[in-house]
Amino acid sequence: MEVQQVLHMNGGAGETSYANNSTLQEKAISKVKTIVEKRIIDLYCTTFPKSLGIVDMGCSSGPNTFLTISNIIDAVDKKRRHLGRSSPEFQVFLNDLPGNDFNNIFKSLAGFYEKLKQNNGPDFGPCFIAGVPGSFYGRLFPTESLDFVHSSYSLHWLSQVPPGLENGRGGVLNKGNIYMAKTSPPAVFKAYLEQFERDFLLFLRSRSEEMRAGGCMVLTLLGRRSPDPSSRECCYPLELLSQALMEMVSQGIIKEADVDSFNLPYYTPSVQELITVIETDGSFHLDQHEVIELNWDPNDNDNNEDSVFDKLTTGRNVAKISRAVTESMLANHFGEVIMDDLFKKYGENVSEHLTKEKTKYVNLVISMTKK
Amino acid sequence: MEVQQVLHMNGGAGETSYANNSTLQEKAISKVKTIVEKRIIDLYCTTFPKSLGIVDMGCSSGPNTFLTISNIIDAVDKKRRHLGRSSPEFQVFLNDLPGNDFNNIFKSLAGFYEKLKQNNGPDFGPCFIAGVPGSFYGRLFPTESLDFVHSSYSLHWLSQVPPGLENGRGGVLNKGNIYMAKTSPPAVFKAYLEQFERDFLLFLRSRSEEMRAGGCMVLTLLGRRSPDPSSRECCYPLELLSQALMEMVSQGIIKEADVDSFNLPYYTPSVQELITVIETDGSFHLDQHEVIELNWDPNDNDNNEDSVFDKLTTGRNVAKISRAVTESMLANHFGEVIMDDLFKKYGENVSEHLTKEKTKYVNLVISMTKK
Repeated sequence: MEVQQVLHMNGGAGETSYANNSTLQEKAISKVKTIVEKRIIDLYCTTFPKSLGIVDMGCSSGPNTFLTISNIIDAVDKKRRHLGRSSPEFQVFLNDLPGNDFNNIFKSLAGFYEKLKQNNGPDFGPCFIAGVPGSFYGRLFPTESLDFVHSSYSLHWLSQVPPGLENGRGGVLNKGNIYMAKTSPPAVFKAYLEQFERDFLLFLRSRSEEMRAGGCMVLTLLGRRSPDPSSRECCYPLELLSQALMEMVSQGIIKEADVDSFNLPYYTPSVQELITVIETDGSFHLDQHEVIELNWDPNDNDNNEDSVFDKLTTGRNVAKISRAVTESMLANHFGEVIMDDLFKKYGENVSEHLTKEKTKYVNLVISMTKK
Repeated sequence: MEVQQVLHMNGGAGETSYANNSTLQEKAISKVKTIVEKRIIDLYCTTFPKSLGIVDMGCSSGPNTFLTISNIIDAVDKKRRHLGRSSPEFQVFLNDLPGNDFNNIFKSLAGFYEKLKQNNGPDFGPCFIAGVPGSFYGRLFPTESLDFVHSSYSLHWLSQVPPGLENGRGGVLNKGNIYMAKTSPPAVFKAYLEQFERDFLLFLRSRSEEMRAGGCMVLTLLGRRSPDPSSRECCYPLELLSQALMEMVSQGIIKEADVDSFNLPYYTPSVQELITVIETDGSFHLDQHEVIELNWDPNDNDNNEDSVFDKLTTGRNVAKISRAVTESMLANHFGEVIMDDLFKKYGENVSEHLTKEKTKYVNLVISMTKK
């Protein structure tokens, strides 16, 4: 089955839904807010356009969907009022895969418009919002129609499982792992990197055609500091999930061959890997790149590096967040029925790990201008 | 409750769903196809634009959603191939109220793109499709961003029940009726006409700001030939529905006061009423207007004016079509529980009526150019 048909955040409003487990992304968005605001204000003040075409790619359907869009619009409106100018028109596109729950987004639009009016007064906008279903690894918009592109927590998802590692089709065996790990053979790292490079290049080439010269793009994705693709900072969360699956293998609940043949369509690049692709494409100027570290459990606000505030709660929180974003793919391969058990074990593994070592997610933020 | 929240076509794929009862609209679209194709080809050949902004307003979610869009794209592509030109980019917007099932539309997008490629070859397009939720009685798009506006079977729905006739809020009493009828007092006709004029003017003013000069608009809506707003050709279908409700009043199933206080947010204008509003707005040139008559039962292909082919089947078909588009509002007022019974009675009334007289729906088609 194609990634497009399987990859989606857990819907609804239940305990394991993405809507209730999106605080990690929310934290990332709030850390990137200053960068986004600076870039949009610079862009606005360069040409004072009558209309701004803005897109959020991988908008999902939950409490974060309107967050960045709202920050962008509020920032521009504050600036134009400060300068005594009339408001530009905002044409906002919310993009995600066709399986995303757009109905849910559209139902909350009236409330969002109301909030915009309250924040920015009656002479604001107008702001027009459209939903754009489709993969951002390809064209989604007419030539030179966009001014600002934002994407958060989406570009670490690949368009497909790297060729050669697809489920049960032979090729390289990533034994006992569902992602790159210390024990993965070199061919696994090569296949993952090459798939990421192909995907990210296609992303940049597509945006390069869609964006106007001078347009800005701010991207946040999970990645790593280290050049080593098997470094713990990026691979360990999924190694713990592999371990939980292998425990179920040893209990006879699932087959080892099923674990061996499953690999997540996911990649956590280094900054240098991103820069290499940006240079290969050649149509963007890299303005800024930054690393932001976030605790595995976004509810853990403790900055003590050696321990977490409550290992059991944290284990459960981390498991719920991972479940909200990976369950659709795992359930498609291993069956829905083992999911509760799997993520319980995973939460326990996370708790256990965090008593020994407090690891963090590495978020890469890059800001570019279209040449 | 606001019309925006109540007005929607029956969802799903059941016997009374809009998806399974949309053949009347399909017939109308096929009759209007030639007009739409001529207008889009004229527009394309005037300036050969690199990109075409096209919107279908009130696209619903069913087998007709892609019909006109598909006709438009195929016509342009055939023409440009005939002329040996490269394909323009198509930016297509599908608009409907936020309660419309956009998820369902987006799930069938992949199949639609596939069909476009098959019909028009690999050098076609590209075509980008977005969903735009919101009422077309107001702005939905940036200034001068559209080239072609199409709407079918939507503009006879008003933005609200005419003031003074709202449910249970006093004002004029439209006793025993749910729409304009022979027995309605003059104030009812006045209130309906004024609401239609306000709505249609707002529609034209909004499109006038959104469309580029030279842009085209083709609108199909239910209406009437006669200047008399209570004429049978437009009011009789709903008089038969009122009669079914009054039968339920006499059986003690519903209250008479509930019928008296319910009025559909719907209006069937005459061509002259449309022209008056177009002239008041002043920003469009009326190119063409046409009347197309369609049998109440779109499955009845018999052109014999005096009888229908099978009165019982026809009664049921007509009832199902009406139910698919009016049930949400009726159920909101009278309760879901009486719907089966109501539309059974209505189907019987329709059968009975059609043995005496074969009435038809009057469809008005108007084609305009933005000055």
